[in-house]
Amino acid sequence: MRRALMLGGCTALLCVWGSVNAQVWEALPTVAPAPADNPTTVAKVELGKMLFHDPRFSETGTVSCASCHNVMEGGDDHRPTSVGVHGVLGGRNAPTVYNAAFLSSQFWDGRAATLEDQAKGPITNPVEMGMKDLPAAMARIRAIPGYAPYFTAAFGPGEVLNIDNAAKAIAAYERTLITPNSPYDRFVRGDKSALNAQQLRGMQLFAETGCGSCHQGAIFAGPALAAGTPFLQKFPVVATSPLVAQYDLARDLGRAASTGKPEEEHLWRVPTLRNLTYTAPYMHNGAVKSLAEAVRVMASTQLARDLTPGQATDLATFLESLAGEFPQQTMPRLPPTPGDLLM
Amino acid sequence: MRRALMLGGCTALLCVWGSVNAQVWEALPTVAPAPADNPTTVAKVELGKMLFHDPRFSETGTVSCASCHNVMEGGDDHRPTSVGVHGVLGGRNAPTVYNAAFLSSQFWDGRAATLEDQAKGPITNPVEMGMKDLPAAMARIRAIPGYAPYFTAAFGPGEVLNIDNAAKAIAAYERTLITPNSPYDRFVRGDKSALNAQQLRGMQLFAETGCGSCHQGAIFAGPALAAGTPFLQKFPVVATSPLVAQYDLARDLGRAASTGKPEEEHLWRVPTLRNLTYTAPYMHNGAVKSLAEAVRVMASTQLARDLTPGQATDLATFLESLAGEFPQQTMPRLPPTPGDLLM
Repeated sequence: MRRALMLGGCTALLCVWGSVNAQVWEALPTVAPAPADNPTTVAKVELGKMLFHDPRFSETGTVSCASCHNVMEGGDDHRPTSVGVHGVLGGRNAPTVYNAAFLSSQFWDGRAATLEDQAKGPITNPVEMGMKDLPAAMARIRAIPGYAPYFTAAFGPGEVLNIDNAAKAIAAYERTLITPNSPYDRFVRGDKSALNAQQLRGMQLFAETGCGSCHQGAIFAGPALAAGTPFLQKFPVVATSPLVAQYDLARDLGRAASTGKPEEEHLWRVPTLRNLTYTAPYMHNGAVKSLAEAVRVMASTQLARDLTPGQATDLATFLESLAGEFPQQTMPRLPPTPGDLLM
Repeated sequence: MRRALMLGGCTALLCVWGSVNAQVWEALPTVAPAPADNPTTVAKVELGKMLFHDPRFSETGTVSCASCHNVMEGGDDHRPTSVGVHGVLGGRNAPTVYNAAFLSSQFWDGRAATLEDQAKGPITNPVEMGMKDLPAAMARIRAIPGYAPYFTAAFGPGEVLNIDNAAKAIAAYERTLITPNSPYDRFVRGDKSALNAQQLRGMQLFAETGCGSCHQGAIFAGPALAAGTPFLQKFPVVATSPLVAQYDLARDLGRAASTGKPEEEHLWRVPTLRNLTYTAPYMHNGAVKSLAEAVRVMASTQLARDLTPGQATDLATFLESLAGEFPQQTMPRLPPTPGDLLM
């Protein structure tokens, strides 16, 4: 699916880009890769969709994966930081689940190697779903008799109703949450009318400014690395940018907050740029409201570039062209709750 | 759609019932009636489905109608009482939204005449969605540009983006949330194999015990009255039943809590008995866990009848036959949130 920009034809503009920098423009694949030990199947995806939308995985029975990763909107929760059980606030902006299947690591700090690993995290996080431990979460699911046949359909007979299979099913479902055929994708595939003049200016500026040194690849989140190899970058780099203080961008220590390693302070997994029009507000702390301002912040804090308002708008308009087609989904039907399973 | 029990044929059992009591067994219609000023249209239903599932109607952007009326499960939230914004607890068990279109009034105390009226209530309830007032809720929706075309499609051009139309759209969607073709419905329509022997015993017991004096009609929630005419009954009637204290059934004053009228103390709208297997726990306070126990409570507190465990189980098994077919639904696609619309 990799396709150099020049392949689509060689207008003056495209040739300039080709000679000025090595940016490779890739369209989004329509199918996400799956690990060898968890091939995507219809039965797993259906079970995963059920579990993803089931609030009974949480202490109060009110918070599901979909609460903060709302697939009916942009796969996030349109809040600066999320609200978990008992109304408590989380510390970071919910990343979108759409196209997360293409990342080589998960969470803002890349601490989970795979979607399967990631799926187990929020369940026991006290500011997210708040279950005491994973066995307690699975006890909830086992107490709902209607789940057993779905686990058997997905994983065969025997003792299959366990957390690893639940995580596999959720991950299999998430691998279907991809958004191909954005205007950008159509442009890269050869439809030169898919982007307007302002978006083309923004695309050129994206390459010239150096955004693509980190935001590369099909989802603009870095090179295609093996699962478990996070593509990390320091943020903010230019600590003297006034925007760092304005948006409080240096308070969170990033990866060091979970690893405790001083050398990993302010390291972050590079996030995707797809569907940004659906995932405001921006940054790990959700402090930046508009896409044009987010572009200005990144140029200033990472590349020491002060963009003009016009440049920031052009760039934002290009990024808007990365909003793709969301899959149409049927609602899952969740099995009923026995009355003695109180939440 | 009204069909007397005897129409299906006259076995010994059926004739006994017919002579002993006047219970009329009705199947659930497959289409819900709509008021003259809000005919159900495809465009209204689609908009209503979006609004019903949109958490941005709530103060924190985390609670939608679907949070407590989860249509992926039984149209309720499988909790004794609901959790609203900031994690606060509501006072009563969330009633199912499924088949609510057939009720002549809404809320546990019947204080809303129509689905349209009901839809406006939770938005500003501080323990539910918690918006300051209805104009603030509509300001949220107006700030999301993607909603305007859907309102226009549903209600025509002009100033149509208002709370009355939002409520009409939600009500139109709710009128599609009906669950026909339960085993009971198939039995009433003539399929004598649809109920087993235990369910038939329970059905007879239902009639003989007098449950149907209140739980009559297609959804077992009372006679077909005009919209705005709540079918109210006193609960508990037998204040000396030990089950009243055991389940704290008399603390909530019912309709008097909202009207302030002493003569309306402990008056409640008779709830539907359909899909009870999906809506545990039971009663207005969600204090009763199992369906058989709920049957025992009702017989004791309303009819001064002490059912044997076998009778309660037979009756519960009949009620299980009222679980119908839930409509398959596609997920709505919610328009994106502008970054400056902070929640």
